[in-house]
Amino acid sequence: MAASSASEFVFPTAWKRRHLLDLETLTAEEITILLDTAQQMKDATGNCRRKLSLLSGKTCANLFFENSTRTRNSFSLAAKRLGADTVEFSSAGSSVAKGETFVDTAKTIEAMGVDWVVTRHATPGTPHLLARELACSVMNAGDGPHEHPTQGLLDMLTIRQHRQSFEGLTVALVGDIAHSRTARSNLWGLSKLGAHVIVCGPSTLVSPRWEELGFEVAHSLDDILPRCDVLNLLRVQFERQVTRPFPSIHEYAALYAMNGERMSRSKKDILIMAPGPINRGVEITPEVADGPHSVILEQVTNGIAVRMAALWLLSNASDNATSPTS
Amino acid sequence: MAASSASEFVFPTAWKRRHLLDLETLTAEEITILLDTAQQMKDATGNCRRKLSLLSGKTCANLFFENSTRTRNSFSLAAKRLGADTVEFSSAGSSVAKGETFVDTAKTIEAMGVDWVVTRHATPGTPHLLARELACSVMNAGDGPHEHPTQGLLDMLTIRQHRQSFEGLTVALVGDIAHSRTARSNLWGLSKLGAHVIVCGPSTLVSPRWEELGFEVAHSLDDILPRCDVLNLLRVQFERQVTRPFPSIHEYAALYAMNGERMSRSKKDILIMAPGPINRGVEITPEVADGPHSVILEQVTNGIAVRMAALWLLSNASDNATSPTS
Amino acid sequence: MAASSASEFVFPTAWKRRHLLDLETLTAEEITILLDTAQQMKDATGNCRRKLSLLSGKTCANLFFENSTRTRNSFSLAAKRLGADTVEFSSAGSSVAKGETFVDTAKTIEAMGVDWVVTRHATPGTPHLLARELACSVMNAGDGPHEHPTQGLLDMLTIRQHRQSFEGLTVALVGDIAHSRTARSNLWGLSKLGAHVIVCGPSTLVSPRWEELGFEVAHSLDDILPRCDVLNLLRVQFERQVTRPFPSIHEYAALYAMNGERMSRSKKDILIMAPGPINRGVEITPEVADGPHSVILEQVTNGIAVRMAALWLLSNASDNATSPTS
Repeated sequence: MAASSASEFVFPTAWKRRHLLDLETLTAEEITILLDTAQQMKDATGNCRRKLSLLSGKTCANLFFENSTRTRNSFSLAAKRLGADTVEFSSAGSSVAKGETFVDTAKTIEAMGVDWVVTRHATPGTPHLLARELACSVMNAGDGPHEHPTQGLLDMLTIRQHRQSFEGLTVALVGDIAHSRTARSNLWGLSKLGAHVIVCGPSTLVSPRWEELGFEVAHSLDDILPRCDVLNLLRVQFERQVTRPFPSIHEYAALYAMNGERMSRSKKDILIMAPGPINRGVEITPEVADGPHSVILEQVTNGIAVRMAALWLLSNASDNATSPTS
Repeated sequence: MAASSASEFVFPTAWKRRHLLDLETLTAEEITILLDTAQQMKDATGNCRRKLSLLSGKTCANLFFENSTRTRNSFSLAAKRLGADTVEFSSAGSSVAKGETFVDTAKTIEAMGVDWVVTRHATPGTPHLLARELACSVMNAGDGPHEHPTQGLLDMLTIRQHRQSFEGLTVALVGDIAHSRTARSNLWGLSKLGAHVIVCGPSTLVSPRWEELGFEVAHSLDDILPRCDVLNLLRVQFERQVTRPFPSIHEYAALYAMNGERMSRSKKDILIMAPGPINRGVEITPEVADGPHSVILEQVTNGIAVRMAALWLLSNASDNATSPTS
Repeated sequence: MAASSASEFVFPTAWKRRHLLDLETLTAEEITILLDTAQQMKDATGNCRRKLSLLSGKTCANLFFENSTRTRNSFSLAAKRLGADTVEFSSAGSSVAKGETFVDTAKTIEAMGVDWVVTRHATPGTPHLLARELACSVMNAGDGPHEHPTQGLLDMLTIRQHRQSFEGLTVALVGDIAHSRTARSNLWGLSKLGAHVIVCGPSTLVSPRWEELGFEVAHSLDDILPRCDVLNLLRVQFERQVTRPFPSIHEYAALYAMNGERMSRSKKDILIMAPGPINRGVEITPEVADGPHSVILEQVTNGIAVRMAALWLLSNASDNATSPTS
């Protein structure tokens, strides 16, 4: 059923977008195309270990204004797996330090002949701004606490590989929802495909606003645990907490850490996910992280697949002169 | 007229140099070969967006001792467009910090089997030193305030794409001439091909020496503006100004910024260039930077073309045992 | 005699290892296979300047937790010469800074689909730990003062290119033995192949323990000099010396620097080696470093050859399900 060569990849004509900026504005059909294509990429490359030369001669630029090794390299590897070249721009020592605006930096990179700009920035909406200014494809690799669409997609792909359907599934996002772009992308993506999503964490880190938007809000993991099919354990982003009070690490671990005792009160087939990097002993204990329910490393591999899919879809849509710009 | 494949590229037999160190010591014929080859590269690759495998299997090393994202990546992309591999060496965390000499570092890199060393260094003449010590090709990517030959060439290529000839053309280099390697490479290159070059800026940043060398020196942009066919607006390099007094940013902008009002007093077909990164509101206002006379982003694309041309020319000359060493 | 294409490379069936962690636990036969393969790689690629697509589609990850430009790039170039892709992870800005464990970082990188993890870490035994945890191949690029097996191998390859046999050869490792992983890898490798090894340096930097292990210990270079066929001049690693007293640079140079006067008292065909970066005037004078007995730059080229050989051998062994894990 898997495509065995580049020639077997048929572009889904329903895909029209040139940019991947968020999951909030994608339709369920578009998300499904992304997941289907990612699965096809994964199958065709032996779990993302072989090359598939769908994008030879194209160039992907990483334009990261926040530190990232993992996400940046995941995008680079996805591009290389498809035969594309990559080029890395970071804020350290860059032209922005010499007084250049963010948009001028991006336009300069585009003028070097790149096909995609993958960008991470602390300010929400930055990729949307670039999408309006650039002719090439823009991919959001995280815009502050707003969205991280490929992370949402890889989480969804991982769930789909273990469950028949998102319909009727209860997924809890646990932890620091306030600062988490991963949470936001999961919320929009999962709910569009029919899952019931719970946001769970200390009241300082979970806004009641989510309830108004139709999501379930919980402050006790123990209360919701028996109902959950999937737990996505978000990292506590100590580096982002400047102004808010917060439970101590010890308090957090006591209330929210997924450990062996909590596993015993969970559904027998519960999936344990984490976007990583994980803090062992804080949001997850080693017995759970390394246990049979953990799909954390599968998420990493699916990250390559999702990014391969997105690069290919955006690139071919951008060749289509009638495609919408976002 | 453009070459459509690698096999159509015929090496210009008049090209004999193994190194590209400056424009001052090139002949008009050699500069013309570089510009012709760059144009051919650009045409053959769809504005530098496609690959042309003229240099497959070769390796380009970037050896940068000053921060640079843009120029470094431009060289890397040029190499990759021609099928070459790239390898990056920078001063941070390098062997120089462990007491190694600059020449030993370069010789070590060469011994890894590289074909070109592209180097940037704060000390004028560093690439010339390397060219005497290395068997591989050396390319100057900026040696302090001395020269930046590929920047000069890309500026000239951009002018040539808009004008029939350099003969009779008046080009003003405006701003911080004292610290600008871009200015020096433009001065030598443009004058060799017959353009009239004016260096224009505050007296603290423009040496009267240029007059002795046959160039026109001006301190008022408004005085020379009506005569100019091309303005090249150099960035004020605040980071290099340690000892000299200087007009404030406000004073500079008032006297030298290219703005809408000055545009109205310029030739109707004036070209506005800037080596970038630009400081909007300092040397150029947004209406001019983004206006119809601005060719700033074309310069960036031409940078790829010029570097592709230089890599190819140097590489083939170095295979010629009878070629001179510089 | 050299293989002229990828198809002529026949895998040595005696090679079974998936990891290259140290030379201490390799057999003489295994070391010989590595050296033979490296020589074959070098010959087949015109001194490591051409490509040999034995490993196309595979990916090599560099996971370096200590600064390194030279070794990291040597591994990258070796991988690229064989057609593999490379991806760089470093400690700066990485997930380890966000609380992730070293093993989780490595497992995450592996889950991205890499075939080799090349690692450098300040803690001895780190690569051995990774080899137990990862399914892909692990290569030690330096674990604190413990071992640096590819450096040992490239030193041995260089000697073998100038001498018929290691039997009967006297090799002195001179300098800071205490902090030198290069010394340890040389000691084990050379002695297994039959060379007589002398460790020579100030008593503060040479442990008497080496004598108990069967090696000759010397504190005066002048005493042993007439007997030496090869000198390997280790860099004094000032950055590692925190607690030990040490002779000053002047004292060190007086007692141990290889200079013209000492050359005149050496064997006529002595080989002068140094792992680099060299400190001219400290462990070696310019007339010796640049003289006819110096093979320092050959060592650099041989580093590429040895790493090509190791990547190929480990990669093919790892495809073999019956291979031992280390």
